Amino acid sequence: MIGVSVLGYGNIGSGVAQILRENADCIKKSAGEDVTVLHVCDLREFPGDPCEAILTHDASEAIHDPAVQIVVETMGGVHPAYEFVKDALTSGRHVATSNKELVAACGTELIALAKEKHVNFFFEASVGGGIPIIRPLTSSIVSDHVRRIEGILNGTTNYMLFRMQESSLSFEAALKEAQDLGFAERNPAADIEGADACRKIAILCSLAFGQPLAYTRVPTEGITGVTPEDFVYAEKMGCTVKLLATGRQTEDGVSVRVAPVLLPLSHPLAGIRGVTNAVLVEGDMCGTLTFTGAGAGKLPTASAVCADIVEAVRHPQTTVIRGWEGEELPLADAGEETHSFFVRLADIVEMSAFAEYAEQVFAGVIEGEAACVTAPLTEEAFAALCKEAPVISYLRVA
Amino acid sequence: MIGVSVLGYGNIGSGVAQILRENADCIKKSAGEDVTVLHVCDLREFPGDPCEAILTHDASEAIHDPAVQIVVETMGGVHPAYEFVKDALTSGRHVATSNKELVAACGTELIALAKEKHVNFFFEASVGGGIPIIRPLTSSIVSDHVRRIEGILNGTTNYMLFRMQESSLSFEAALKEAQDLGFAERNPAADIEGADACRKIAILCSLAFGQPLAYTRVPTEGITGVTPEDFVYAEKMGCTVKLLATGRQTEDGVSVRVAPVLLPLSHPLAGIRGVTNAVLVEGDMCGTLTFTGAGAGKLPTASAVCADIVEAVRHPQTTVIRGWEGEELPLADAGEETHSFFVRLADIVEMSAFAEYAEQVFAGVIEGEAACVTAPLTEEAFAALCKEAPVISYLRVA
Repeated sequence: MIGVSVLGYGNIGSGVAQILRENADCIKKSAGEDVTVLHVCDLREFPGDPCEAILTHDASEAIHDPAVQIVVETMGGVHPAYEFVKDALTSGRHVATSNKELVAACGTELIALAKEKHVNFFFEASVGGGIPIIRPLTSSIVSDHVRRIEGILNGTTNYMLFRMQESSLSFEAALKEAQDLGFAERNPAADIEGADACRKIAILCSLAFGQPLAYTRVPTEGITGVTPEDFVYAEKMGCTVKLLATGRQTEDGVSVRVAPVLLPLSHPLAGIRGVTNAVLVEGDMCGTLTFTGAGAGKLPTASAVCADIVEAVRHPQTTVIRGWEGEELPLADAGEETHSFFVRLADIVEMSAFAEYAEQVFAGVIEGEAACVTAPLTEEAFAALCKEAPVISYLRVA
Repeated sequence: MIGVSVLGYGNIGSGVAQILRENADCIKKSAGEDVTVLHVCDLREFPGDPCEAILTHDASEAIHDPAVQIVVETMGGVHPAYEFVKDALTSGRHVATSNKELVAACGTELIALAKEKHVNFFFEASVGGGIPIIRPLTSSIVSDHVRRIEGILNGTTNYMLFRMQESSLSFEAALKEAQDLGFAERNPAADIEGADACRKIAILCSLAFGQPLAYTRVPTEGITGVTPEDFVYAEKMGCTVKLLATGRQTEDGVSVRVAPVLLPLSHPLAGIRGVTNAVLVEGDMCGTLTFTGAGAGKLPTASAVCADIVEAVRHPQTTVIRGWEGEELPLADAGEETHSFFVRLADIVEMSAFAEYAEQVFAGVIEGEAACVTAPLTEEAFAALCKEAPVISYLRVA
């Protein structure tokens, strides 16, 4: 019998306990052993819940029970999750976590600690909810140089953009609808300002390119500036607007960014609707792969945590995560990154600064303004042009 | 150093040698060891090829070299691949194969043999080319009961159907185009008659549902009866036509089939274009996942074989494949399977047999015929109705 302690009995933690209980048959078949939750640690009380008899408020007690081999961390946030996970790994226990803040902030250290202790530190659920993407990156796409990894990694913003397009909702109306449906938090800042996607692409890049990428180095823009007018232009261009998180290998290092972009409808991620997430991986041998599924939600995310538990049981002596070690990933100069830009301007007369670079011009689509799509420009060159003209808004074209 | 022998130096086998050579750096990083091809076995000669110095015509010599720990089988066909693979496993060597005929015909026996010998028998490349689907099924979707697995598993037919839709090509013209582009074999029977997809869905079901499914038990129809007219109706119905391979868990067992179907455009697999393959897996916890990528091609397929090699090096004592053992998978009675059917009839007057069941009727769409979509009917009931009317053709509606 394999003993598990669950730290944090919220949405995902209670889902893990539920799956280990309800799907005990297939977990035993996959893992080769019974897997049982021995302790649940949370500061709250859960009267009447199945966990009531095994609930503790003392994380140390839950971690250090000699019968516990695997610690599940589903608390969220960096502290005290970090201290608990470190304690678990140091004491020779495997850890499976769904906590993207923790993995993005401390992954390098915790992976190294797990290697030193010959235990597993798994985090499939930290990116893409129920979508298998961490394990494919570490166990399947292992004979390729990854050229590009990009994804729609935040379901809240994808739902909002989808609704702004589908029903011409304003940003505010789309946010309120997402909140009413439980797809957005009361405080939506981490989603709409891109911080959530930023942490996830940092995790993916650290694995795909094999060296740590601190999330603080990822240029990040959210969707707060996206308007229904952008979708009017997008339709004319055969595009949609998505919050895209991207890492690309270039000759000068990896180019990484989180930003709303105009995505041609032919792009494999253009059709990802609602709260669905998707990750695209392009390797030099395997070509372009996409992985699509539920990016959040109690049971899909908990299912990914449980898969990590099964893997830890099956490979107790092997640290399955490789790469993500050594020096920080060399990044290309963000200012030298090249894109076509879509720019809205207060008047067509004001377009003179962009005239030389405009490849497509829109006049009269929205009354009282003009817009254009530029030839590929560096970020720096584009920023310089923006200083010379009354730019209403802009989007990169993917 | 890990020694590899490659049996069969065709498209995929030479791709494996190429990747092990050209991507030796990332393979060493992933596997933790150098991986080197020591022998290539093929009946042909390859003067001037990098393999020339290590070419042998004697499989036994290639398998039994004491320095060889992993045998790659990329010959195709059941014999003599079966004998060579059995020899390799029996002598304690891991095997990685791309050979769907072999895995579909002998998988149960070879997996059991690998378990007995404590070696790995891997076949990621046998389904979906470069798409990671075997390993996600065995290492990621392991805490779920799989409810459904379905896929577009044959790139040749998907390309042909795509071209029939896009450019109203006849079946014959689409086949010729696919042959000219190298997407279809000179003898295309295995693709267009569904035998290739049949073997692949049998492999996927054996893993997803945990018990062996003999491919001979899968009711299989190819695309030879699909016509440009079907696409005219499909468009009116908001559908496309795809060769779909499906396994679904029902109360009466697994319901499995390969057939061309009308797929609503909202279906996750409806947008899979050209030679791309995709697999959808629905679990009771993880929800609906899709995996998309190159379903064939030298390097994508070889990349999957190389990933199997890396996994074999990393987990030498573990047989990573679980499930696919025991009794044959219980199947639901195919005659009791229920679908809506789309039926074309020689005349609207002839529709009387179907009148009671028709939910949607098309008259005059194609001159001189009528068509309808039925309410859900069992296969048996539909077959009985077909005897009473001059049916031109039919398709199931997914």
